Amino acid sequence: MRDEVIAFKRDRIVKAAEKLFYQHGYDSTTVDAIAAELKTTKQFIYSYFDSKSEILFIVCQAGSALALEMAERISRSEGEPGKQLDELIRGFARVITQEKMSVAIFIREEKNLEPAHIAEINRRRRAFDQILSGILDEGQSKGLFQVDDTQTTARLISGMINFTYSWFKPGRKLSAQALAETTARLVQRMVRAS
Amino acid sequence: MRDEVIAFKRDRIVKAAEKLFYQHGYDSTTVDAIAAELKTTKQFIYSYFDSKSEILFIVCQAGSALALEMAERISRSEGEPGKQLDELIRGFARVITQEKMSVAIFIREEKNLEPAHIAEINRRRRAFDQILSGILDEGQSKGLFQVDDTQTTARLISGMINFTYSWFKPGRKLSAQALAETTARLVQRMVRAS
Repeated sequence: MRDEVIAFKRDRIVKAAEKLFYQHGYDSTTVDAIAAELKTTKQFIYSYFDSKSEILFIVCQAGSALALEMAERISRSEGEPGKQLDELIRGFARVITQEKMSVAIFIREEKNLEPAHIAEINRRRRAFDQILSGILDEGQSKGLFQVDDTQTTARLISGMINFTYSWFKPGRKLSAQALAETTARLVQRMVRAS
Repeated sequence: MRDEVIAFKRDRIVKAAEKLFYQHGYDSTTVDAIAAELKTTKQFIYSYFDSKSEILFIVCQAGSALALEMAERISRSEGEPGKQLDELIRGFARVITQEKMSVAIFIREEKNLEPAHIAEINRRRRAFDQILSGILDEGQSKGLFQVDDTQTTARLISGMINFTYSWFKPGRKLSAQALAETTARLVQRMVRAS
């Protein structure tokens, strides 16, 4: 119970910080402002995090953590490559639409992250792209896919989805669900052997 | 001749600022640092630009200006949609690999741009996407393409290319030329009626 309460409080702080970093930028957001957002004190924040920079890393790593977990689960599932690809694309599109603030903040605030933290997020992104290119390779070797350069194709596909952080607006005509489906269909057409 | 010299000097300043903004961020780059990079003085910089913020806009707008000019030229050319699409994708991929610092700086430093300047760059990006979706619509109506949602597809395609700013490294195994070709081929497969 105690651990759950700590996790809950940390999560509230991270979510408040994320909103302020997204709206005003990291430099313009003080720990006092995060505390005010939660109607609490700076001391409360510092009892859960060592520094504003630690909170920034927790915010920035969320998207890559969720995406890689999901990709690893799918790659262990041993479905046929077309099905794995479909699940991976839909899942990744959902992660990015849900975590668009995390993705945006990582891209904008890289300069404010510690080198070890940037390296960790980039390691996860590369691991995600490797799982994706592995699925393309497998589909290729089974004659299901036809892809000239699976590594470049994997990066182009993940970039297409990553970049939706900048233009997808929840609550408009295009739902996150419809975006995930359109994307998955386009990717199947890109790689399917004809 | 005098105008050409002014343009040349302004361009040198913009290029030096771009490099420093890309490496160290806008906030950490002083006008003195830009002057030092060019072995000149702050006064020299200020005789060509009103402010550091004006230089930032010139840097950030380069990618969208080149991309939109190119797209407008192709859309006026009245080639068949498959050929227009191919030229547009190759041209856009070339612009983004060439202007990757401009794209990165715009994405990272949006908070430091004036609202009117952000609006202008976003207007050009939307106009580019509209030309792209217009080509998809035309190909669709001629039975050459088969696309479910041309607007979303256009945004996904331009996002895929935009995002190469973050991972394409000139001088490695994958050339800008090969990237443009792979991308154009994938896009044709995405949209061609089968």
